[in-house]
Amino acid sequence: MAVMRLGRIAHPDGICFAVIDGPDEAPAEQLVAKEIAGTPFTSPEPTGREWKLSDVRLLAPTLPTKVVALGRNYADHVAEVFKQSADSLPPTIFIKPSTAVIGPGAPIKIPEFATKVEFEGELAVVISKPSKNIKAENWKDHVLGYTICNDVSSRDLQFQDGQWARAKGMDTFCPLGPWIETDLDKLNLDDQKINAFLTHDGHREQKQDSNTDQMIVKMGGILEEISASFTLLPGDVITTGSPAGTAPMVPGDSIEIDIPGVGSLINPIARA
Amino acid sequence: MAVMRLGRIAHPDGICFAVIDGPDEAPAEQLVAKEIAGTPFTSPEPTGREWKLSDVRLLAPTLPTKVVALGRNYADHVAEVFKQSADSLPPTIFIKPSTAVIGPGAPIKIPEFATKVEFEGELAVVISKPSKNIKAENWKDHVLGYTICNDVSSRDLQFQDGQWARAKGMDTFCPLGPWIETDLDKLNLDDQKINAFLTHDGHREQKQDSNTDQMIVKMGGILEEISASFTLLPGDVITTGSPAGTAPMVPGDSIEIDIPGVGSLINPIARA
Repeated sequence: MAVMRLGRIAHPDGICFAVIDGPDEAPAEQLVAKEIAGTPFTSPEPTGREWKLSDVRLLAPTLPTKVVALGRNYADHVAEVFKQSADSLPPTIFIKPSTAVIGPGAPIKIPEFATKVEFEGELAVVISKPSKNIKAENWKDHVLGYTICNDVSSRDLQFQDGQWARAKGMDTFCPLGPWIETDLDKLNLDDQKINAFLTHDGHREQKQDSNTDQMIVKMGGILEEISASFTLLPGDVITTGSPAGTAPMVPGDSIEIDIPGVGSLINPIARA
Repeated sequence: MAVMRLGRIAHPDGICFAVIDGPDEAPAEQLVAKEIAGTPFTSPEPTGREWKLSDVRLLAPTLPTKVVALGRNYADHVAEVFKQSADSLPPTIFIKPSTAVIGPGAPIKIPEFATKVEFEGELAVVISKPSKNIKAENWKDHVLGYTICNDVSSRDLQFQDGQWARAKGMDTFCPLGPWIETDLDKLNLDDQKINAFLTHDGHREQKQDSNTDQMIVKMGGILEEISASFTLLPGDVITTGSPAGTAPMVPGDSIEIDIPGVGSLINPIARA
């Protein structure tokens, strides 16, 4: 069976991987979650059990052992956050641990000591097999599909600590989802829109309105560079950096990262 | 049974957790590895199978989901690496991923693009249960035991990248072992020696000769600070920073981190 959208769901009897069937952009009540046997990394076969997506809850679509992230990969975002040109401050690699991962709809929880917490909407990929030393031109051989990562970042801790582990890696600071789009040819990575909408006090405003054509290092290069140092395991996530437009979020807000062709990842903000 | 030293071994029939029995500082042929049933996090019971330690191979004593590390936690090391005082450059948190972990005797593999790779001998602890918001005074309630971490660091990449993920997190850059010392009262953390010996061209030289009395943030404070941001899972490792004396290693060398009362962690250096 040709898997297109692959999710992980909590249904009335437990948790499973499922194909999310239905048209792009359709509301949840028009989508069907079809349970699959085995793992998404082999050949997923339908078990025959299915639910309306509106009757189940989407979880993070993968259980990564690590999320390896690229920072400073959009020139406009480097300028807004670091007040420097991307020429003088090249992309850099950092890690978000598995304990930071949450799924769609789960709250991003801000502790008292993080006083300026921002969203970062990013296109991410999920690794399909153990991979080291990937060649840029072969990157699709190592990828199960696309998903969305909100690289939540506490700007104050980011600059205070120097290292970004705490600012970007604390619990709930890595929303992933809503699912994995396994058709790698569906997106044109040279011209793919990335949007973010922040809802504050009931008012929804577009904050990020960018395009992957602004990426400094492209997908193949990112996977080549990261896999030269780190063995990547099935389910691991590589996230490709945020464009400009990041902004603070406070408890009560809701943040939606929207990548047309992949989906929308929506999370409420709460106090930890 | 009172577990004291807990290791993970590869024996002729497979891999298991084992109690490592015998006197401190004894050579491997005088130590016995006694297989245990279950996991070290519950009540380990001997199965009755045992081997001379010299007939089996020690593996990394834990399978952490992440290693959370403290950088710049010894003032003399801050001065030697960063050329600044510890007052102006406080300790910082970073993450080494699970894929960096190797056990005793396994080679640290240096890729061509890492041109100045140094050892850092560190006292580490292994987490015993899911833990968040640990109080400093209760840290022992969350710890299974002590082990040794060699926080291998590529100094050139560390400064070039800014973020330390690649410099300190690449494959093989996190030797752990030789086992877990579960008697938490065995060490006096206010006066515990840490040594490192580098063997180069057949000549063995002591490079680190320090003491945990030099630590800026103490064990309880480290666990309180880290667990305020990150949920820690059983088997996760917290490593407490390196004292001064770090130095470059090249293929053909051998590095030994020695913490009296815990043991010695020895790894050869090879080309990746």
